[in-house]
Amino acid sequence: MSALRIGLAGLGTVGQGVAALLEANGELIARRAGRPIHITAVAARDKGRQRGVKLDVPWVDAGALAARDDVDVVVEVIGGSEGIAKTLCENALKSGKAVVTANKALLAHHGAALAALAEKHQASLAFEAAVAGGIPILQAVQDGLAANRITRVVGILNGTCNYILTAMQESGRPFEGVLAEAQEKGYAEADPSFDIDGVDTAHKLSILASLAFGSPVNFASVSVEGIRRISAEDIAFARELGYVIKLLGVAETGKEGLQQRVHPALVPLDAPLASVNGVFNAVYLEGDPVGKQMFEGRGAGAGPTASAVVSDLIRIARGHVAAPFAIPIAQMQQLPAMPLGRIQRGYYLRLKVIDQPGVLADVTDIFRKTQVSVKSLVQHGRRAGEPVQLVLVTHEAREEAMQSAVKAIAALASVTESPQLIRIEEA
Amino acid sequence: MSALRIGLAGLGTVGQGVAALLEANGELIARRAGRPIHITAVAARDKGRQRGVKLDVPWVDAGALAARDDVDVVVEVIGGSEGIAKTLCENALKSGKAVVTANKALLAHHGAALAALAEKHQASLAFEAAVAGGIPILQAVQDGLAANRITRVVGILNGTCNYILTAMQESGRPFEGVLAEAQEKGYAEADPSFDIDGVDTAHKLSILASLAFGSPVNFASVSVEGIRRISAEDIAFARELGYVIKLLGVAETGKEGLQQRVHPALVPLDAPLASVNGVFNAVYLEGDPVGKQMFEGRGAGAGPTASAVVSDLIRIARGHVAAPFAIPIAQMQQLPAMPLGRIQRGYYLRLKVIDQPGVLADVTDIFRKTQVSVKSLVQHGRRAGEPVQLVLVTHEAREEAMQSAVKAIAALASVTESPQLIRIEEA
Repeated sequence: MSALRIGLAGLGTVGQGVAALLEANGELIARRAGRPIHITAVAARDKGRQRGVKLDVPWVDAGALAARDDVDVVVEVIGGSEGIAKTLCENALKSGKAVVTANKALLAHHGAALAALAEKHQASLAFEAAVAGGIPILQAVQDGLAANRITRVVGILNGTCNYILTAMQESGRPFEGVLAEAQEKGYAEADPSFDIDGVDTAHKLSILASLAFGSPVNFASVSVEGIRRISAEDIAFARELGYVIKLLGVAETGKEGLQQRVHPALVPLDAPLASVNGVFNAVYLEGDPVGKQMFEGRGAGAGPTASAVVSDLIRIARGHVAAPFAIPIAQMQQLPAMPLGRIQRGYYLRLKVIDQPGVLADVTDIFRKTQVSVKSLVQHGRRAGEPVQLVLVTHEAREEAMQSAVKAIAALASVTESPQLIRIEEA
Repeated sequence: MSALRIGLAGLGTVGQGVAALLEANGELIARRAGRPIHITAVAARDKGRQRGVKLDVPWVDAGALAARDDVDVVVEVIGGSEGIAKTLCENALKSGKAVVTANKALLAHHGAALAALAEKHQASLAFEAAVAGGIPILQAVQDGLAANRITRVVGILNGTCNYILTAMQESGRPFEGVLAEAQEKGYAEADPSFDIDGVDTAHKLSILASLAFGSPVNFASVSVEGIRRISAEDIAFARELGYVIKLLGVAETGKEGLQQRVHPALVPLDAPLASVNGVFNAVYLEGDPVGKQMFEGRGAGAGPTASAVVSDLIRIARGHVAAPFAIPIAQMQQLPAMPLGRIQRGYYLRLKVIDQPGVLADVTDIFRKTQVSVKSLVQHGRRAGEPVQLVLVTHEAREEAMQSAVKAIAALASVTESPQLIRIEEA
């Protein structure tokens, strides 16, 4: 059977990984795909730069890949939600070429429009690499778990954040020092904001939620908080209370619609996600009737990402055709976005208070009025008249009640710093 | 689009689960499959028995399902490697009907022949439910990880054994009592030998290994040991040394071929599989370039098994056609079976010895001669002239060297009981 011909756009870490994998495992890939998969054209900004892979194929402008007769599939690993990556994917789909991409920003912002384009032109659009790297979670949700009504998806989807939080956990050191170390080691970018402010996790979550809940990607409705505000104290208190802190993407459905959020959370030590450490990613989900499942693996890097890209290529080589989000876009229903205020969770609240009689009574009085009930409480040391740390863990309460309680608590004269509120997620 | 018509053979726990799921999630399944999936005929031994599901369709002999014009897919959930289940699957495939089965015994013994039959008649044969219940591990290996050279697969594949070992771990109680309790609770069969002697795990391992390594199912070459010999003492010593004991199915490739084995093993406490408890199943694997991955979920029961069966039906409804073992049987190469004696592992060895001078020197002398090196050693209490427990953990050694060392040690006069040898698996 004739080879599947790839136009590779982008030769950064991922592009080089794809080229290296097609070379290294070429024979095995051809056996599994039913035919060889070859790169026939490459587009990269800087042809002259020394790269780890040798590609004896035409180097062209990215814009030209979509029009080439010797390209069946465009692999887009340039990145960015706008500009050249978007134009290339659109043009390829318009010419009926398949597109495989690792570009989560593009899909988070334009996933539904691109899927509509793919469906109109009967072209494949596949993006396993965009979420959780080498973990085949999108295929699992689309195919292996397709009979289930999924009710909840929780992911550790950003290796940089998980590396930083794990290192803080293990060393007891503060955020800034660990971030600097992660940057030195290449686990965090020079400008790390995309990762540590939770935007990357939110991109991935919105794609995963679309597949899991059959609702078009709705990135705009994800509420996003990053990990900058997590202190060494929070990590230590959480541990004392039986939790670790992870940056989670959470999507869940209820009567009020679909709730999507990204934030640091306390995870019980015996929960599956608690032991996912370092640069590893994981996705935990609950489905009816399958119950609880967890998938864990490497979420980034050349090898794992290339594994996902080439698995998509193998499916295309086999003739697999499917709607990009499993259900045709026209048949999807946009679930209403459930406001963050309506969720029910337990909370961790750390306060800096002047150690004086009546403080605890003031705090618990506010909780009583807002109908939030306290499950446990930790205070270290006693220094009459001086500021001390007071940590409370609540039973499940409604977010809006908790927020109004925290607002009232922050206004107390004896509370000397802005309270630290972190949600608890059982996953 | 016209409905996909199912002939359901078997109405035990799994058959009822499939019927209930097609009913409960029917609308969602039709949306994801692109068309409705309906049961149009049922074969079950005892029509009269009260069952949890109402099926207003013809009840026929299992033998007749394969010939019915109103059946597109036969779902075989009768069980057993021979007899009616085998004949039904063969006849269905011969008439060009698709077969979906949860029958691991059938596939372990006749998987390659059935796949050849399916390929000859261009019929689908799917069996996601046969391995690890609701975890979509077969699809992951076939599709999502298809670009990888998989080098090692380790699974906790039997919920009964994992329940028993977890309960022994948590309670400190011996095997027999925990087994009896598991039987009372319905987690173990009245005749539990298939599960606790490792046969069920071996069936599943041979199917998983075939897909992972592209070699026809070779159940006969799996070496199998069960968990009957694991004592409360072993569990306690293992814990003290930083391990838990799990029944594992292990398949790995090396220069000498494919090695498949089922046995209880010590797993380090911080390894991914160590925290998979109770009736949960999990599969850990290593692939190049994806690295380490783990999948965890419910491995048995009506819901998880039905989830897997119906996911196969959805793929068939979508028109997905593939070789049952990803690569056409004719193109598979039977990898040579690597003998168990050639593996390299660490070992746990528990000895009952008379507490007298020179015993340890005798044991370590044997190790020196067989080139096995000791990593750690535990002895509890001292009772001169009385039998005491001595536990040694070795560095990696070749199995045949270890076996000959154990044979020599067993022959020592001061060793009063048959030594207990358990492999260590890092997974």
